[in-house]
Amino acid sequence: MIKVGVFYPNSAGSKFDMKYYMEKHIPMVRQKIGPALKNVEVEQGVGGGMPGSPVTYSIMCHLSLDSVDAFQAAFAAHAPQIMADVANYTDIQPVVQISEVKL
Amino acid sequence: MIKVGVFYPNSAGSKFDMKYYMEKHIPMVRQKIGPALKNVEVEQGVGGGMPGSPVTYSIMCHLSLDSVDAFQAAFAAHAPQIMADVANYTDIQPVVQISEVKL
Repeated sequence: MIKVGVFYPNSAGSKFDMKYYMEKHIPMVRQKIGPALKNVEVEQGVGGGMPGSPVTYSIMCHLSLDSVDAFQAAFAAHAPQIMADVANYTDIQPVVQISEVKL
Repeated sequence: MIKVGVFYPNSAGSKFDMKYYMEKHIPMVRQKIGPALKNVEVEQGVGGGMPGSPVTYSIMCHLSLDSVDAFQAAFAAHAPQIMADVANYTDIQPVVQISEVKL
C-alpha cells in the first residue's frame, strides 16, 4: 500500500477554502481516481510540537492506493482537471510525496 | 481525534536506522503512551510528486489519540525517555505537528 501525501504549508496571507476543499475538491478527486483510491484522510493543523508553536502544514491530505503504478494509472488521465481545481480553494503550493506504508 | 505527526526530513548524509525504529522505538512509544495511543502509522518516502523527484521526508510517523489533552497527559510523563531514544536511530531533527482529523 502507498500513500500520496499532499501537504499545504502554513503561510501567512495565503488562502485555503476548507469548505470548498472538503465539499467539492475531495469528492471530485474520489470520483476521478475511482476504485483505485482505497482511502482518503484529511488533517487540519492545530499546533507545532511545542505548546504555542506554529503548525508547519495548514492542511494535509493522504490518499491510499495499492501501488505507485496504480496511482499513476488512475491519476494521469484526470491530472489536468484535478490540478485545475486547486486554484478554486488555495494559492498555496503543496508539498507532494509518495510513501510506502510500513505500519 | 488528533494525529501527532513526526516527519523526518530527507537529508543527505544523515542516518536513520529503520530496523531499530520499527523494532525498538515504535514499540517503546506504544508501551509508554499506553491505551491513550489509538493507532500508529509509519510511512517510508518513495519519491516526490513528479517522477524522479526526491522525497521531502524519509520517514513519517502518525500517532492517533483522542485529543491534544490526552496526548499531553500521556506523553509528558515519558517524554524524556522517548526523546532520549531518538539518538539511537537517527540524527535527523524531525518536524512535529499536531493536527485534527477531519476525514
